[in-house]
Amino acid sequence: MSQITLFGLGAMGQALAHRYLDKGYTTTIWNRTASKAHSSGLIAKGASQARTVTEGLEAADLVILCLLDNASVKDTLAQGIQALHGKTIVNLTNGTPSQARELSEWVGSLGAEYIHGGIMAVPDMIASGSPHSMLLYSGDGTVFERVENHLAHLGVSKYLGADPGSASLHDLALLSGMYGLFSGFLHATALARSARLQTGMSAEDFVSQLLTPWLSAMTQYLAALAKQIDSGDYATQGSNIAMQVAGMENIVSASEDAGVTAAFILPILGLMKRAVQGGFGGADVSAVVEFMGVER
Amino acid sequence: MSQITLFGLGAMGQALAHRYLDKGYTTTIWNRTASKAHSSGLIAKGASQARTVTEGLEAADLVILCLLDNASVKDTLAQGIQALHGKTIVNLTNGTPSQARELSEWVGSLGAEYIHGGIMAVPDMIASGSPHSMLLYSGDGTVFERVENHLAHLGVSKYLGADPGSASLHDLALLSGMYGLFSGFLHATALARSARLQTGMSAEDFVSQLLTPWLSAMTQYLAALAKQIDSGDYATQGSNIAMQVAGMENIVSASEDAGVTAAFILPILGLMKRAVQGGFGGADVSAVVEFMGVER
Repeated sequence: MSQITLFGLGAMGQALAHRYLDKGYTTTIWNRTASKAHSSGLIAKGASQARTVTEGLEAADLVILCLLDNASVKDTLAQGIQALHGKTIVNLTNGTPSQARELSEWVGSLGAEYIHGGIMAVPDMIASGSPHSMLLYSGDGTVFERVENHLAHLGVSKYLGADPGSASLHDLALLSGMYGLFSGFLHATALARSARLQTGMSAEDFVSQLLTPWLSAMTQYLAALAKQIDSGDYATQGSNIAMQVAGMENIVSASEDAGVTAAFILPILGLMKRAVQGGFGGADVSAVVEFMGVER
Repeated sequence: MSQITLFGLGAMGQALAHRYLDKGYTTTIWNRTASKAHSSGLIAKGASQARTVTEGLEAADLVILCLLDNASVKDTLAQGIQALHGKTIVNLTNGTPSQARELSEWVGSLGAEYIHGGIMAVPDMIASGSPHSMLLYSGDGTVFERVENHLAHLGVSKYLGADPGSASLHDLALLSGMYGLFSGFLHATALARSARLQTGMSAEDFVSQLLTPWLSAMTQYLAALAKQIDSGDYATQGSNIAMQVAGMENIVSASEDAGVTAAFILPILGLMKRAVQGGFGGADVSAVVEFMGVER
């Protein structure tokens, strides 16, 4: 029978514990506010509560942390520092790549192994074992391979290399993509709402009938843009940056007329204008990456 | 047999003409630079070239324009002003809602009918009659119904009300959504690229393996956010704005560390912080619409 210890009983920590209990693991849980172990229903389901961090670490070789932030991870592990030796720490706490690298080094110096992970799913998906949950991992490849079968219960695992910061970097990259999507959604929906008295169309109707099909089609086009970035060949058969800039001025103007902020579109419009000035007027929008401060 | 006249032989204008020729229409074409009619292959395919704007208007009751901008539309139609009476003008030229409203009024004052349209497709899709092409229309409903069967050859038609500016507004709204998507794609891909020497992952791999599945899943969530906007009830079971703001600071910090501009995420982050200050910290990200200058 497999053992696991979980530190942290926020919404995601609880989901992780439920999942391992459902998969038959001998599951030990710890939370800074100990009463949460009972209110979560996990004790009733068979989890053991560790009274101290040391007790939690001693209960299993595989230890997963999902706390508020990485400062809490260090504070918590420091309380059981003598029991860290020989353990495999999988840290699923949100943070920056540099925090993950620092923790990896510190945990390593205490004789434990460290894998960092990022969960691309909401707690309900993790608790129910949804096949759509994706988890990003990075750190020592041999260590990852040894614990991979335990992590596979949480969703699809993507291993992103030995740099412990890599999982966080890609986690944050995907989130930055999501906030771009949300920015576009908010701008589009606010514009459509400004006309809803004439069209009689709710925001939900606009999004389900027009915006979602449109963005779904455009999403399928992103891999082709990425291929241009890989090759450095940004030639387009379609609408080039210079042509698009003219249309984007119409968005800014129509937003102002409708009383909707155009703030979300201004950064990419600014970089597209810089791209035109830099000789990329005939290129596809992918060429903007050349003006984002990344060396090729 | 049906007649149609098309003004404008840019990439999209040519695609429109090819489509109507393929559907068996007696097709008359006009372009400011007349030589384009031959080089486009449309004459060889059976189109007639109008030598003047008046000749083009006289050749059919249904007249479609797809020009560089709406100023060109007015300049062009003004050259055949005596022949406008009784015609139905469908203007598929990109522009702002207010331009469409002005043109509608002007065309109406000359005894012609006016429908404005926006093409949500690339020329190849229009030329081939792709079922995925979507076209937005607005203007007088009776007029639209009368020409609807002719317009249906171009793709799926969405009629958006009597305001001639409505089609442009929704066209620009969808484009603003697309530029949000592109902003997120560029930010995410630039971050992932900063680690490509360690991960060995190309931009195309990152996008097809990680970003596209992730954004596709998130896109399915937009209708639920729109529903919250309709109801004004932004309560969330998941990660609220206040929690998300903390994670977004990690994106900004990691972007700076990676040498990638965080400019694309700053506008939405700024509005989310304003939402927190405005008492929406516990709400879903949809509540940001309350801070975009739109009255509810």
